[in-house]
Amino acid sequence: MENTVPDVKILSEFRAILGPKGYTDEVEMIAPWLTDWRGRFTGAAPALLSPANTDEVAAVVKLAAKHRISLVPQGGNSGMVAGATPDKSGEQVILSLRRMNKITVMDAEDGLICCDAGVILQNLHEAAAAVGRRFPLTLGGKGSATVGGLISTNAGGTQVLRHGTMRMLVAGLEAVLPDGSIYNAMAPLKKDNRGYDLKQLLIGAEGTVGIVTQAVLHTVPALIDRCVAWAGVESPAQAYDLLLFMQRHGRDRLEGFEILPQRALNAVTTHIAGTRPPLDTAHRWHALMEFVQDEPGQIPPNELATQLLEKAMHENLLGNATIASSDAQAEAFWKIRDSIAEAERAAGPALQHDISVPVSAMARFIEDESPVIESTYPGTKTLAFGHLGDGNIHFHVKAPDGVDVTSWYAGDGKAITSHVYNRVRAYGGSLSAEHGIGQAKIDEFERLADPARLAALRAIKNALDPLGIMNPGKLVPLA
Amino acid sequence: MENTVPDVKILSEFRAILGPKGYTDEVEMIAPWLTDWRGRFTGAAPALLSPANTDEVAAVVKLAAKHRISLVPQGGNSGMVAGATPDKSGEQVILSLRRMNKITVMDAEDGLICCDAGVILQNLHEAAAAVGRRFPLTLGGKGSATVGGLISTNAGGTQVLRHGTMRMLVAGLEAVLPDGSIYNAMAPLKKDNRGYDLKQLLIGAEGTVGIVTQAVLHTVPALIDRCVAWAGVESPAQAYDLLLFMQRHGRDRLEGFEILPQRALNAVTTHIAGTRPPLDTAHRWHALMEFVQDEPGQIPPNELATQLLEKAMHENLLGNATIASSDAQAEAFWKIRDSIAEAERAAGPALQHDISVPVSAMARFIEDESPVIESTYPGTKTLAFGHLGDGNIHFHVKAPDGVDVTSWYAGDGKAITSHVYNRVRAYGGSLSAEHGIGQAKIDEFERLADPARLAALRAIKNALDPLGIMNPGKLVPLA
Repeated sequence: MENTVPDVKILSEFRAILGPKGYTDEVEMIAPWLTDWRGRFTGAAPALLSPANTDEVAAVVKLAAKHRISLVPQGGNSGMVAGATPDKSGEQVILSLRRMNKITVMDAEDGLICCDAGVILQNLHEAAAAVGRRFPLTLGGKGSATVGGLISTNAGGTQVLRHGTMRMLVAGLEAVLPDGSIYNAMAPLKKDNRGYDLKQLLIGAEGTVGIVTQAVLHTVPALIDRCVAWAGVESPAQAYDLLLFMQRHGRDRLEGFEILPQRALNAVTTHIAGTRPPLDTAHRWHALMEFVQDEPGQIPPNELATQLLEKAMHENLLGNATIASSDAQAEAFWKIRDSIAEAERAAGPALQHDISVPVSAMARFIEDESPVIESTYPGTKTLAFGHLGDGNIHFHVKAPDGVDVTSWYAGDGKAITSHVYNRVRAYGGSLSAEHGIGQAKIDEFERLADPARLAALRAIKNALDPLGIMNPGKLVPLA
Repeated sequence: MENTVPDVKILSEFRAILGPKGYTDEVEMIAPWLTDWRGRFTGAAPALLSPANTDEVAAVVKLAAKHRISLVPQGGNSGMVAGATPDKSGEQVILSLRRMNKITVMDAEDGLICCDAGVILQNLHEAAAAVGRRFPLTLGGKGSATVGGLISTNAGGTQVLRHGTMRMLVAGLEAVLPDGSIYNAMAPLKKDNRGYDLKQLLIGAEGTVGIVTQAVLHTVPALIDRCVAWAGVESPAQAYDLLLFMQRHGRDRLEGFEILPQRALNAVTTHIAGTRPPLDTAHRWHALMEFVQDEPGQIPPNELATQLLEKAMHENLLGNATIASSDAQAEAFWKIRDSIAEAERAAGPALQHDISVPVSAMARFIEDESPVIESTYPGTKTLAFGHLGDGNIHFHVKAPDGVDVTSWYAGDGKAITSHVYNRVRAYGGSLSAEHGIGQAKIDEFERLADPARLAALRAIKNALDPLGIMNPGKLVPLA
């Protein structure tokens, strides 16, 4: 079964639904949306559709189903796995949700906010703050990432430790299904046992079984204060013990716990202007912690962090530690963490793996697997950093100095990536912790997926999207 | 397509897989498992299969698929909607998970516990307590309800306000899919973005797309102390304001918030020996609250409750309040709440509706809908009580005194139930908040379900269980 290339007549039908504001086939208007955020995938599209509301999305999908036109839903185009990029065939039409950007605070007391799919994360943050609340999910692309994309990729970020991924923050949802029908589950029900939870199915589905058009989102109370701390530790294992200690004593006052090796700190202080090591002592590994206060009467985060770090030092859970003495210093600590990828790029080409294993196994994974890779592929350097508290590490492998980059990526690079994912599977882990599958990981996903699981995913995809028009080529490797 | 009646030869193949301990076709051994908990549905089954482990479950399912034998998975047989009861055809075989009852504490520090599907909730509570932890979900049937059943019905209970339903407590899961393949997602990954979340699909699926065989469950720290408080209020609306106040100031120290009308209190103190009103003042409505401490150094729950109740009284959010002065008194307060159904039975026949609407709409629902029913059907009395904090009320309607019960159930009773569910739908709510659909609600579910949603559920059911052998007749109304 092949899907149809949209011809001029079909395109004119889309234009008739959407009007001039919602339709373009001008090459220059479409071009910026054809390449993924990381610049590794570039596709083609005969038109860019920008519906103004759910009814228009439904009409577009109905028409697409009628003519068997493939649709590629797109929000901020800031995904990491090219899940919103069309293929090169020129058959796939981009369906942008960006014009749908209304935010409605439903009930500030309940903390629920209703958003169109195209609402940009930064704007959601501001809308929540305006009513004394906080939307706790945040990530680097917040200036462009949209609510629909965040839901469709079950986005993560640095606040997951306490607040969970996007899945935990969705109270209600509306989507257009592959036949153009509208699935409305916007009522924020805390309990609902009417069968399979379609909402859960649509979260993280990358637009392959429906297009998220609206959502009701949970918020949390606004922060009163925070404290960012930095600790030097010996190893990932010691960092894990420190994490458990902080969770046991800090409970939900601990909102973030990130780790990085000395090698990452060196790369940042070498390549990123204005950064310097938070500690004047040398350590093999480092942990960045954020403690928060969002309830009046709680012990201030600074005081809590001081107490806990002193106690942790006394229990030999860290080598040295410091607390940011100002908001500027807190931002400087976070800047080190957030600049690792940029610093690494400046240092040379590297493979990037967004992986997860059970939290309790992550330290062992890093300690056991890094030397194997470095000795099997001489000259490579591993760099594991990120969300230890979520069992989610960005496991990067830097190419040896002086190699021909293109041939290295195609040869050893490919082998290393397969090796990393093989090991992740041996730990029961995931080759995609927070970025999704998209186009970038679909082959490796197919290679490594449990056959029972893969068969179930294919069955669901084919059952809900029998024409195969919803973001084909993404997420689910079809036979 | 009709499924097969298992003949002697097929039954002997099941026996060969399971051995004498795992197989019976003796009428007296099967009889206790043919009627649902509420005694409203009785079926027939030619055999009761009791596998000892996942491999045996897989072999049973494979054999069932080969011969097209329908399987009815069953745990403690304590569900409320006859989801684990075979139909009357005599074609359906019961697959009991009760022999699979191992509990393994994986990592006390992580708080994760691994359970076979047949583990009884009470035993899970004890296993968690033995390592200084708590499994926070609890309900009346805890002495018989099993982990597999709790997952397959996404069970609720009185602690959902703080800890969520079963869905929130499952970290990992294993299931046998309808073709007999084993889906293993036991690794407790905090982040995993590899496509549709099958774990979420299996939770609440009532065994219609797979049989849950094992799970890894979250626990929470053991309680240090608790305080149970009782308040008299004017109305559900005032109770809702009180709830918001307690959530705002008590945060996650508030673990339960239940409401009941004076009529329910009267029924309990009249019909249940040893109960008496907690307050000596008269109130139209009552709220039962539980405050907990599970972190050292927190203000004791008694003190917290006293402060908050005084403040709430000062703000006119309640009429009068009292705090249980001993654990025995705390139990006495809870006994009132837990005896409502029993007291009501003693008072006469009634319809029971387990419904949810958005939390903020529940007070209005109760206040607007109750008088309509009582005036439309003279002599009926409504009784709304339960989990206000979850937007989940048990909305009962007592039959007029002296009616012929059988004909009332078939006539006005049926009309009233349809009316209640119609109104629930108008509020965007659910006709099954925590009990599920099973056999008991499948017709009303089909009548009221959003067609887009129903079509999706059918497509998923047919795709994953094309032979229709997994608990047929439950949850998903097939065309």
